[in-house]
Amino acid sequence: MASTRIREARERDCADILRMIRVKPAGWKTECRGAGSGVVGAGEELAEYEQLSHQVKISEEALRADGFGENPFFHCLVAEVVPASGELQGPRVVGYGLYYFSYSTWKGRNIYLEDIYVMPQYRGQGIGTKIIKKVAEVALQKGCSQVRLAVLDWNKKAMDLYKSLGAQDLTEAEGWRSFRFEEEAMKEMAGC
Amino acid sequence: MASTRIREARERDCADILRMIRVKPAGWKTECRGAGSGVVGAGEELAEYEQLSHQVKISEEALRADGFGENPFFHCLVAEVVPASGELQGPRVVGYGLYYFSYSTWKGRNIYLEDIYVMPQYRGQGIGTKIIKKVAEVALQKGCSQVRLAVLDWNKKAMDLYKSLGAQDLTEAEGWRSFRFEEEAMKEMAGC
Repeated sequence: MASTRIREARERDCADILRMIRVKPAGWKTECRGAGSGVVGAGEELAEYEQLSHQVKISEEALRADGFGENPFFHCLVAEVVPASGELQGPRVVGYGLYYFSYSTWKGRNIYLEDIYVMPQYRGQGIGTKIIKKVAEVALQKGCSQVRLAVLDWNKKAMDLYKSLGAQDLTEAEGWRSFRFEEEAMKEMAGC
Repeated sequence: MASTRIREARERDCADILRMIRVKPAGWKTECRGAGSGVVGAGEELAEYEQLSHQVKISEEALRADGFGENPFFHCLVAEVVPASGELQGPRVVGYGLYYFSYSTWKGRNIYLEDIYVMPQYRGQGIGTKIIKKVAEVALQKGCSQVRLAVLDWNKKAMDLYKSLGAQDLTEAEGWRSFRFEEEAMKEMAGC
């Protein structure tokens, strides 16, 4: 039987990673990709995908340059199906977890898990959990004191999963709210 | 008259940065330091400071190692008061903005503004706004498409400031919630 392993992404995985970034679960809102969203069961729908895929500005070249240069802006783990011996097809990347190092002025180094995704036909096998556990391992190895992520409020399954693994909902517990400046506001501020 | 300038932090600013990290505005909740909090006017109170300062695990050495090595985990701007000629005292660091590069799988490179702080006696002069504007400038120079940050829900002044500068509240607009795994949960997950 085929097995799944989690490993560090290599530069040649970028095409696979981008393929998965481009697929949106049904019910996706504009600009609403978040950690754990892909873990839950909503099936992808091609129409939804075609409607939203124009919002994905990232390219394979950008992923290669930003994730695999000397000073990478992100790091990535992939979940790879390894066929049992005798099966013809080779390993296949069916999920990923993309993270970067963040910093707390109270606690120092942290990891921020930006994105976690498992292809629908491979869900329910604990692959998402395996990815998160591997991220926790990396965090401890790198001297990080926390792993943070964001989830959309309608994504109860993902929130339940994180809570079951010991995460706290900081928006609920402490009232944290996320803010974003987009390019237009940035240019206005920078006087461009 | 003295003027204020915003410049990149140097390694020798770490003592000043740590001094400001350690000061907590009154009304601060446990683990609740966030961008913009120091911009608003709540005066620091020594008792509050003494109660909470034990939670600051970061050291000057950690700031030096993590922010000023080859692969820095964060970057920092400082606000420095430059005395007018004839005044005796030298420049003094009275505020800071600490950020790191984050990554969106839709949009690529971003900046996350972790912390922004201005000493109470220097507030109301637009120093916080100057720091944010400089962060926006850096973000554009580095090819970032967004600047993100988090604010506590009771900190209306900071939220109003960010909104006035063009930021969107993503928790309100899209329902984003922040989650955190702490060390115990990480160890549990990593099987330590």
